[in-house]
Amino acid sequence: MHDVADPKAHLDLMKTIKSEPLADKHLGEGKTLGLVFFNPSLRTRLSSQKAAKNLGMEVLVMNVGSDGWALEMEDGVVMNGTTQEHIKEAVGVLSTYCDIIGVRSFGALTDSEEDEKEKVLSAFDLHATVPIISLESATGHPLQAWADMLTIVENSTKPRPKVVLTWAPHPKALPQAVANSFVDAMKCMDADFVVACPEGMELSPERMKGVEVIHNQEEAFQNADFVYAKNWSSYSDYGAVNTENNHWTVSSEKLDPETKFMHCLPVRRNVVVADTVLDSPASLVLQQAENRVYSMQAVLHKLLSHGE
Amino acid sequence: MHDVADPKAHLDLMKTIKSEPLADKHLGEGKTLGLVFFNPSLRTRLSSQKAAKNLGMEVLVMNVGSDGWALEMEDGVVMNGTTQEHIKEAVGVLSTYCDIIGVRSFGALTDSEEDEKEKVLSAFDLHATVPIISLESATGHPLQAWADMLTIVENSTKPRPKVVLTWAPHPKALPQAVANSFVDAMKCMDADFVVACPEGMELSPERMKGVEVIHNQEEAFQNADFVYAKNWSSYSDYGAVNTENNHWTVSSEKLDPETKFMHCLPVRRNVVVADTVLDSPASLVLQQAENRVYSMQAVLHKLLSHGE
Amino acid sequence: MHDVADPKAHLDLMKTIKSEPLADKHLGEGKTLGLVFFNPSLRTRLSSQKAAKNLGMEVLVMNVGSDGWALEMEDGVVMNGTTQEHIKEAVGVLSTYCDIIGVRSFGALTDSEEDEKEKVLSAFDLHATVPIISLESATGHPLQAWADMLTIVENSTKPRPKVVLTWAPHPKALPQAVANSFVDAMKCMDADFVVACPEGMELSPERMKGVEVIHNQEEAFQNADFVYAKNWSSYSDYGAVNTENNHWTVSSEKLDPETKFMHCLPVRRNVVVADTVLDSPASLVLQQAENRVYSMQAVLHKLLSHGE
Repeated sequence: MHDVADPKAHLDLMKTIKSEPLADKHLGEGKTLGLVFFNPSLRTRLSSQKAAKNLGMEVLVMNVGSDGWALEMEDGVVMNGTTQEHIKEAVGVLSTYCDIIGVRSFGALTDSEEDEKEKVLSAFDLHATVPIISLESATGHPLQAWADMLTIVENSTKPRPKVVLTWAPHPKALPQAVANSFVDAMKCMDADFVVACPEGMELSPERMKGVEVIHNQEEAFQNADFVYAKNWSSYSDYGAVNTENNHWTVSSEKLDPETKFMHCLPVRRNVVVADTVLDSPASLVLQQAENRVYSMQAVLHKLLSHGE
Repeated sequence: MHDVADPKAHLDLMKTIKSEPLADKHLGEGKTLGLVFFNPSLRTRLSSQKAAKNLGMEVLVMNVGSDGWALEMEDGVVMNGTTQEHIKEAVGVLSTYCDIIGVRSFGALTDSEEDEKEKVLSAFDLHATVPIISLESATGHPLQAWADMLTIVENSTKPRPKVVLTWAPHPKALPQAVANSFVDAMKCMDADFVVACPEGMELSPERMKGVEVIHNQEEAFQNADFVYAKNWSSYSDYGAVNTENNHWTVSSEKLDPETKFMHCLPVRRNVVVADTVLDSPASLVLQQAENRVYSMQAVLHKLLSHGE
Repeated sequence: MHDVADPKAHLDLMKTIKSEPLADKHLGEGKTLGLVFFNPSLRTRLSSQKAAKNLGMEVLVMNVGSDGWALEMEDGVVMNGTTQEHIKEAVGVLSTYCDIIGVRSFGALTDSEEDEKEKVLSAFDLHATVPIISLESATGHPLQAWADMLTIVENSTKPRPKVVLTWAPHPKALPQAVANSFVDAMKCMDADFVVACPEGMELSPERMKGVEVIHNQEEAFQNADFVYAKNWSSYSDYGAVNTENNHWTVSSEKLDPETKFMHCLPVRRNVVVADTVLDSPASLVLQQAENRVYSMQAVLHKLLSHGE
């Protein structure tokens, strides 16, 4: 989010691209986008490939690990163990093959300071000689946030909608990345923004600065125009799964008839949110997923236009 | 097969496309084909990619499972187990990224009624907002059957050739899908068609309706113009491997000098068919494989032309 | 290397292509490159994809094994075991889908005679009806050697540079393929060429014919313009790892200030070569990796131009 000086203008660019996705299909001709995944990906890979193709770019996909590629991240190591290539060479080589590189990594969720260092993303930034795009990192997912912002703008009937980000149950420890970037996004928009979560499940103090928190979900949902559900693991007890709040599942009964429902997908039905919500017209989840193409395409568009 | 009103016209379209595969390379410009594999695939993936590229389409490939994507197929489930995404969302999202989706699935071969429900393919049909193409399902493989029909037409010297589909040995339990669709195909063609199989290895009663069955392979092969070998597991003892008929391996000695040999590949040499057959000019297996490109391209061509 | 009659002209073609990689982007239009990997690959896959795309070709990638594709290599086998498809059919089918096929395989490093038969590559050559390109085989890696030659030509300030290929330590048994092809390459170039290796670590007698060998690394490095480091396992004690010469790690102290350092990557830092070398301007490793695109593109260019 921080790389974009004028969020309003960026959203306008996304809208323009969405209205005619192939309008600039020669902009990326002869250019190559590299996509590096440290974790499996589906939506991110597909939407990135589609965005690149819409601009005429070629795409090279690499899966760290499953493509038999064990990367060393530490400096000065004697590499006589399991790692086969240092990230310096890996990123250096990719920079010679690619004009832009997208990279997806996750945190280990064991140490907040470690995750906040964003080792993988930082190493790409440091060693690459071409622009790096985050396709989600340990602590942020800006492309998702842009897709979410566009979805809100497209569905909002008010100049200042009420938007609630609600924690929801999940059996596994999930990163805070999506929630973090959504909070950042809401700080850029004219919105009456509230985070609803059980006590102790607040995001990092830095992120929550200036953000209203309500620990009562019912109260938070009142008069909401948009309810964005997302699970995240604990920040204060870093990485811990909260299993005591299964009643935080979002259901139709909890939502006003006018409230729109959002989630970044993939979503566990009847755990995070009830079937009745997802299968109703209130759900914007497919639109959010579709908008991922345009959030990626807008970033590529800017980078490709930069040199003109 | 059932989607094609006029088989003769469809075969003519395939022939036209084969004679000039790149003639309509702008038809699919800006369009995306999604290929979803619930099972590993090689020939199907490559021929589909090639067909799409011949029409100028972009291709997005997804491997369920190996791409770390565990799909929930049942309705109403509380997804607190191993599945991460419901097929409703998966197909919904793919529909926003793709203009046409091809899907390959297999049956479990444990319950014929279950397999005949075609749960995966039906779920795609139900939840997609774009056309769905079967790249083989639990009980059928129409694209293979179209490639086979074209191969017969290309090699037939008679208005009504004799065609034998013969069961052949195999160490593993294989689906009936290819055989089923070949039977359907022969019902559309002017052919003297016979199924040769050991007693008890007939396909489903519904499929065999009106089809001549001979349990003596030698008798069935007499004066055959085309012998199509294929293993399938038992229908009556659903999914059982028949291990008592290893003498059903097709060999040169069993075939007339004029008889052409067919198989959909991959084929286990000297189990399903002897080297001497596959390595002789009688074998049409590579032509069948090549024609897979045109059977896919013809379907894509029709779907892309539909809106014109 | 043996397929190229005039090395000088081939290097000139590579230079021309590198100066304008997209100049012939219509040469491969409508043509398909198949890439078959018997072993994981990253650099090779990406550089080949990029080279093909630069010429307008489509690319189909197949991973033997991980794509669920167990190939039978032996003739006359009764395939009732684990292999599912014979290489005859696999290559035959690929020949119908692809205009050119690249294949990467490795030796087993257990029997030099077996590896020298190059079973996989030979089977592709034998059964394909389209040109086959080696993307590294059991005993050679010609595309790497061409990239290396170009790198030397680009960086050489002398008509006859001194080039040293030095063995370096590595914890695992690596093939001799890269070293073999580099030796072949140096025989084609006007270079003062020396192989430095511990006693007993010479490459095959046939390869070493006419090549100067020095067992003292320090002596070999004197006045070297280029030092190419590479580990290989023993030829005489075929496939054995040499663990007694860890002092052969290349370090800055061992190199003249003017000496350029080369390695084909991936490289184990501080095992094969010290950080101080790789992180200095002496290192040409990224340029070598970049030149892999042009070594592939030159071969594709020739094959595509052949029919004109």
